[in-house]
Amino acid sequence: MTAAVIRGVKIFQEVGISAGTAPSGASMVGNFPPGDGDEEQNSPAPFRVIVGIAVYYLFSLLLFIEDEDHLKKIAAYKVVEYVESGMVLGLGPGSTAKHVVDRIGELLRQGKLKDIDGIPTSKKTHEQALSLGIPLSDLNSHPVVDLAIDGADEVDPYLNLVKGRGGSLLREKMVEGACKKFVVIVDESKLVNYTGGSGLAMPVKVIQFCWKFTASRLQNLFQESGCVAKLRTLGEKAEPYVTDNGNYIIDLYFKQSIGDLKAASDSILQIAGVVEHGMFIDMATTVIVAGELGLNVKNKY
Amino acid sequence: MTAAVIRGVKIFQEVGISAGTAPSGASMVGNFPPGDGDEEQNSPAPFRVIVGIAVYYLFSLLLFIEDEDHLKKIAAYKVVEYVESGMVLGLGPGSTAKHVVDRIGELLRQGKLKDIDGIPTSKKTHEQALSLGIPLSDLNSHPVVDLAIDGADEVDPYLNLVKGRGGSLLREKMVEGACKKFVVIVDESKLVNYTGGSGLAMPVKVIQFCWKFTASRLQNLFQESGCVAKLRTLGEKAEPYVTDNGNYIIDLYFKQSIGDLKAASDSILQIAGVVEHGMFIDMATTVIVAGELGLNVKNKY
Repeated sequence: MTAAVIRGVKIFQEVGISAGTAPSGASMVGNFPPGDGDEEQNSPAPFRVIVGIAVYYLFSLLLFIEDEDHLKKIAAYKVVEYVESGMVLGLGPGSTAKHVVDRIGELLRQGKLKDIDGIPTSKKTHEQALSLGIPLSDLNSHPVVDLAIDGADEVDPYLNLVKGRGGSLLREKMVEGACKKFVVIVDESKLVNYTGGSGLAMPVKVIQFCWKFTASRLQNLFQESGCVAKLRTLGEKAEPYVTDNGNYIIDLYFKQSIGDLKAASDSILQIAGVVEHGMFIDMATTVIVAGELGLNVKNKY
Repeated sequence: MTAAVIRGVKIFQEVGISAGTAPSGASMVGNFPPGDGDEEQNSPAPFRVIVGIAVYYLFSLLLFIEDEDHLKKIAAYKVVEYVESGMVLGLGPGSTAKHVVDRIGELLRQGKLKDIDGIPTSKKTHEQALSLGIPLSDLNSHPVVDLAIDGADEVDPYLNLVKGRGGSLLREKMVEGACKKFVVIVDESKLVNYTGGSGLAMPVKVIQFCWKFTASRLQNLFQESGCVAKLRTLGEKAEPYVTDNGNYIIDLYFKQSIGDLKAASDSILQIAGVVEHGMFIDMATTVIVAGELGLNVKNKY
């Protein structure tokens, strides 16, 4: 993080902005310091102002990303403390879980961990683990998983999760539903007062056949919570997003709590055409929350 | 049926067996009447006996098939009495439903039915209906179906069904779950005392990923009912049967009743990896049973 800040400040100085006097909005425009170089003197002032603001926000973003990635790495190292030699491990996808897999590979190489069987829940994680030499297995051979590690899109006060905004959820649900311990790593922006409380999507996988009908049934199911159901699409042409298993995703947006999550889950699953939904109820045993002030560990039991 | 019997008797006479003295087993071998032709006289007696028995059973089978098909046709004509002009109709696959679709096509051509919208639940039915000029639609355009007509693999005393032994069940469940009236046509061999009571398969669609694990969870779920879970396979190589949607089928066999069907259904659907099961609970409103003595109509309400 420190290296990134120094790099950021240097670049700001190069374009004539001190880190302490970065523009915070349009009001800064009048006081913007003039540049030194010939080319800059020849450029019209508004252009230089725009370039300056753009460069500032770009590097703020880079700093933020590097910062966040650093936090994720810290969280990943923390969660790997739960891993012991001889364990069967569920390995989720996602940016934090990537660091977890890297770290496990490192500890295996160093001989600090032995006899690990990894069960990846995505093709990407499968490839990553393979490239690191982590022995792999599956639920057919290991129907009981000692520990699964993954991220989440939402965590409610009872450690119920929403997952699947990135598109995958079914394999995770199978593996994470088969484990003794399920440790989730999130940053504090993922904490919500109730499931769906972020106002962002709760994904439901459906078969393609008559998906509009299924979407309409889903929306009606949660009418009282102001539910809106939308087909997930991709690109400018808004083509339907198709999952690994050839299904569509209907994203549900709630304005209010949907109440009893288990009842809601059963109602969703009872709809023929629904394959699975993104609520992970009563599954996480520990949630590690990475925030500005450090890590906060929440245990279910 | 009569034509078939006459044809059968004729053929029996041609091979030297009167319909009244057909062999009923091995005890007939010694009394088997000799043939008349040169070729037959030259053939060794045991060979002629074997040919005679084979021919008898072949034509008994043909008579039986024609008989059964005739019954199905009668049942199909009966069920079409429920169809009225202006209806949106769910059209199932299966041998009896085929006659239903034929009959509806005929009535449309004759002008006795008008303004029908058919929603086929299989590709085969789609093609059949299309070739007969039946206007087609789907659940996206018609979320409420007036009447669905289909067969079933099992019918319990409360008109709960098992379907999907032929491989398809998901589209039927969607369409038949959206209808005001659902009329089922079966022969009396499909009547059971409890769901699964035939000792034949109750199919469950699952995703391919870690299917053995899912099969094992399904079997454990109904351990008390002596459940055995088997992957449905095809051909000599026993390759897994793959559904239209790219899923596998796990067939569940029960030795005893599984009790509360709704609870069983929820338990099955709660397993991540399960897409749908073949129990159609509380969906049929009428079951027409075709037996030797005619048709028996059972109504739910």
